[in-house]
Amino acid sequence: MRHFTRIADLDVTGVAAILDEALAWKKHPPGAHLAGKLLGMVFFNPSLRTRASFEAAMLRGGGNAIVLEVGSGVWKLEDRKGAVMDGDRPEHIREAIPVLGRYVDALAVRTFGALQDDAADAADPVMHVFRELAGVPVISMESAREHPCQGLADLLTVRENFGDTRKLPVTLIWAPHIKPLPKAVPHSFLLTAAAAGCEVRIAHPPGFELHPEVLAEARLYASQSGGSVAVTHQQQAALAGSCVVYAKAWGPATKNAPGGEAAARVAAHKDWLITGKTLAMAAKDAIFLHCLPVRRNLEVADEVLDGPQSRVIDEAENRFHVQRVLLHKLMNGAVC
Amino acid sequence: MRHFTRIADLDVTGVAAILDEALAWKKHPPGAHLAGKLLGMVFFNPSLRTRASFEAAMLRGGGNAIVLEVGSGVWKLEDRKGAVMDGDRPEHIREAIPVLGRYVDALAVRTFGALQDDAADAADPVMHVFRELAGVPVISMESAREHPCQGLADLLTVRENFGDTRKLPVTLIWAPHIKPLPKAVPHSFLLTAAAAGCEVRIAHPPGFELHPEVLAEARLYASQSGGSVAVTHQQQAALAGSCVVYAKAWGPATKNAPGGEAAARVAAHKDWLITGKTLAMAAKDAIFLHCLPVRRNLEVADEVLDGPQSRVIDEAENRFHVQRVLLHKLMNGAVC
Amino acid sequence: MRHFTRIADLDVTGVAAILDEALAWKKHPPGAHLAGKLLGMVFFNPSLRTRASFEAAMLRGGGNAIVLEVGSGVWKLEDRKGAVMDGDRPEHIREAIPVLGRYVDALAVRTFGALQDDAADAADPVMHVFRELAGVPVISMESAREHPCQGLADLLTVRENFGDTRKLPVTLIWAPHIKPLPKAVPHSFLLTAAAAGCEVRIAHPPGFELHPEVLAEARLYASQSGGSVAVTHQQQAALAGSCVVYAKAWGPATKNAPGGEAAARVAAHKDWLITGKTLAMAAKDAIFLHCLPVRRNLEVADEVLDGPQSRVIDEAENRFHVQRVLLHKLMNGAVC
Repeated sequence: MRHFTRIADLDVTGVAAILDEALAWKKHPPGAHLAGKLLGMVFFNPSLRTRASFEAAMLRGGGNAIVLEVGSGVWKLEDRKGAVMDGDRPEHIREAIPVLGRYVDALAVRTFGALQDDAADAADPVMHVFRELAGVPVISMESAREHPCQGLADLLTVRENFGDTRKLPVTLIWAPHIKPLPKAVPHSFLLTAAAAGCEVRIAHPPGFELHPEVLAEARLYASQSGGSVAVTHQQQAALAGSCVVYAKAWGPATKNAPGGEAAARVAAHKDWLITGKTLAMAAKDAIFLHCLPVRRNLEVADEVLDGPQSRVIDEAENRFHVQRVLLHKLMNGAVC
Repeated sequence: MRHFTRIADLDVTGVAAILDEALAWKKHPPGAHLAGKLLGMVFFNPSLRTRASFEAAMLRGGGNAIVLEVGSGVWKLEDRKGAVMDGDRPEHIREAIPVLGRYVDALAVRTFGALQDDAADAADPVMHVFRELAGVPVISMESAREHPCQGLADLLTVRENFGDTRKLPVTLIWAPHIKPLPKAVPHSFLLTAAAAGCEVRIAHPPGFELHPEVLAEARLYASQSGGSVAVTHQQQAALAGSCVVYAKAWGPATKNAPGGEAAARVAAHKDWLITGKTLAMAAKDAIFLHCLPVRRNLEVADEVLDGPQSRVIDEAENRFHVQRVLLHKLMNGAVC
Repeated sequence: MRHFTRIADLDVTGVAAILDEALAWKKHPPGAHLAGKLLGMVFFNPSLRTRASFEAAMLRGGGNAIVLEVGSGVWKLEDRKGAVMDGDRPEHIREAIPVLGRYVDALAVRTFGALQDDAADAADPVMHVFRELAGVPVISMESAREHPCQGLADLLTVRENFGDTRKLPVTLIWAPHIKPLPKAVPHSFLLTAAAAGCEVRIAHPPGFELHPEVLAEARLYASQSGGSVAVTHQQQAALAGSCVVYAKAWGPATKNAPGGEAAARVAAHKDWLITGKTLAMAAKDAIFLHCLPVRRNLEVADEVLDGPQSRVIDEAENRFHVQRVLLHKLMNGAVC
């Protein structure tokens, strides 16, 4: 594995190997496995868990991290090829990326889509330039198309609670939001759960389809892992007997957003707010997951987040555990 | 001591113990006493000394720190319980705090009051949620009610200059400002000086009273330490024979601010600008203290800050010395 | 060498010594030569290479760095002497600088000129106060007048490509931009190249003169090193037979800017855009340098930046190599 910016960099066997090692390291943490290593972290978008968990993984492993926030302290970056740069972005990523690659042992990147056009976002152009020009391993901290470290942390949490993930019914359920959000997180939960052999059920209102290429990729993984992928617009059908309720607000990109204005959109999907009643449709011992940040009482009711079935804090902690394994693989050239 | 967010976490004996150890460590610095330790620093408000001195304390002790600025790089955080989160704050502190607590060994927090309502600020709600949900020790980098690391640094500076602090006359004197400021710093100087046995005199114009609960707490400490607390509106009475002139602009919260508009407020209290004449009312060998930042020639004249009686740079340095002792107690579970 | 904020802190012999050592260390990196050392980095202006390369130099040397961005997370700083501080800047550099000096082993500073008045910028007042009040060594990360670490990185790149720099023809050529830019970078390339014995040719349109004191200083170094300095408004004359094409947009300060508005200024100097044709006027094996960030197709055409003669990424990497030598000299008191 040269880079890790998508589940395809691991495939079905690789996903299992990372989860095995992360479980083992969570119980018996490694020593200074990253001594002398330096990670460059480039943020085009805000973060809390991602930044803190990556920095913690480097520092607790005996390494170090440099944090760069594009447009705040760091020059704004242009990414359009061939641009005449007479606007407000004084530097091009075609210089910034290879320069940073000279100072560090790996680059971690967060770059959201522009949310203007689903196809453009799914093409993930900025992440491709990082892979092409960095000169060192690149790890995704979420891009327009995927958030693969989140997907692995999600499945680690499932593994901790249920042991074997094969044939386990898990439900990815859409939640309302005041604005369109990227599809990277639902994409990565879908891909990782499919690779881990889960029976994945996706429920969302019409018009909020995940990207067809990602669905096809997930179905390929499911065919290899013994899992399955099903999509429905019915909450009840998706939740019955399910062991994991994974809530997330997503897309679509604004230009073709159904519903229009924020309040109207929320009102139109009021019955998709995740409440105790939603949870009650799932299996009795089902766990509740959300990648965070979550808008309380808009996406998910307090009673769910503060209730006994929630595992969202464990899930966030697991970001740290999967990332230290991934950083080890990438920075120490360990076979994966 | 599980957390340190207020002088009450130490009490009279504890204050003396921290100052003793900080004085000793300033002369003979410890080695890598924080090796392997990671501090999460969460800023809701700007900082200079606080940030640099905490990071320096961690790094010079062989540990590390992660710095998170809420609303800049990190998601804006909601703190209202039960809120329907449809505004501009995408994450709630009820998730953010326990998540961060999973990555680090202790959390340091800076959170100012909203300055709309004195009673609300004194209740210090954000700091209480940190204490409740962090899962690791919490240390205050200033909150709406107190700035206890500042209070300890202030008293360390007094100890360095005068040795014994018992019965030492010290004066906390109000200074003008273009806007209302939090009362955390005067509260903490008052509480710490009272706990250290000083004869504390407070001088301010009518309408700028410190919080009655804090005054009562200071009087309790004074009764235990042999000190005293007196409040006056007369500069001369407060300064005569005093060994320490501690200047600070403070409150009250805007809603009930007397005077109204900035320029008018400054003009109305012109005679409270701290000048060489003010200093001349105190004892001949009196030292001048201010927590910084200070607005030159608005709060305090150049002649005082640049004069031989000023100890403001030493005072700022002492932040580092008291904090390394406090971090040691909190992160290594040392008895305090 | 107590501070390093200008080429004059090194002089002709010192420049050669730093370049020799940087070349040697680039091949055989030192171990933990900065163990236990802490650098305070103060940014009044944005950065990418500077911040990442300085942090990398400290961390790879076994030391640490604290990054402070003035006005973002850190209080805005006043620098006018005697100011009545009733505006939006709550802290004065006369407190901020000595306080930070108490926490760290050296201070690194980036402070651009105000670009209102060439003479005021060349006087470099903020950097002078740092030198006066820091109490620890100060290193420039670019100031209003010079960017000496950039100059050394530039010349290291020239040394790597051509070996001996004495009598080597090198051309500093002006490029168009939508706004006036500081002259620190051209000043430092000029001073360092002259100190290294190059035959320096400068080409710019009328009205974009470099500072006369800096030109005089460069001529003095040239007289000591065997180099020379020539200024022309003719690209062809400056480029014929030259081994280095160093492009940069600069000044003058706005008040006396010729041309006025952005688009008009660019249009008026269209023929100064650096293209393949410009490069073809120089020697056949000439290398292309630019300090970055560069506005593609406004200052320099894609064909130059992406072509085989460009060394801009090596040049940026060399910031790291010269800075680790400089930090070693300053923080370990090594003789220079």
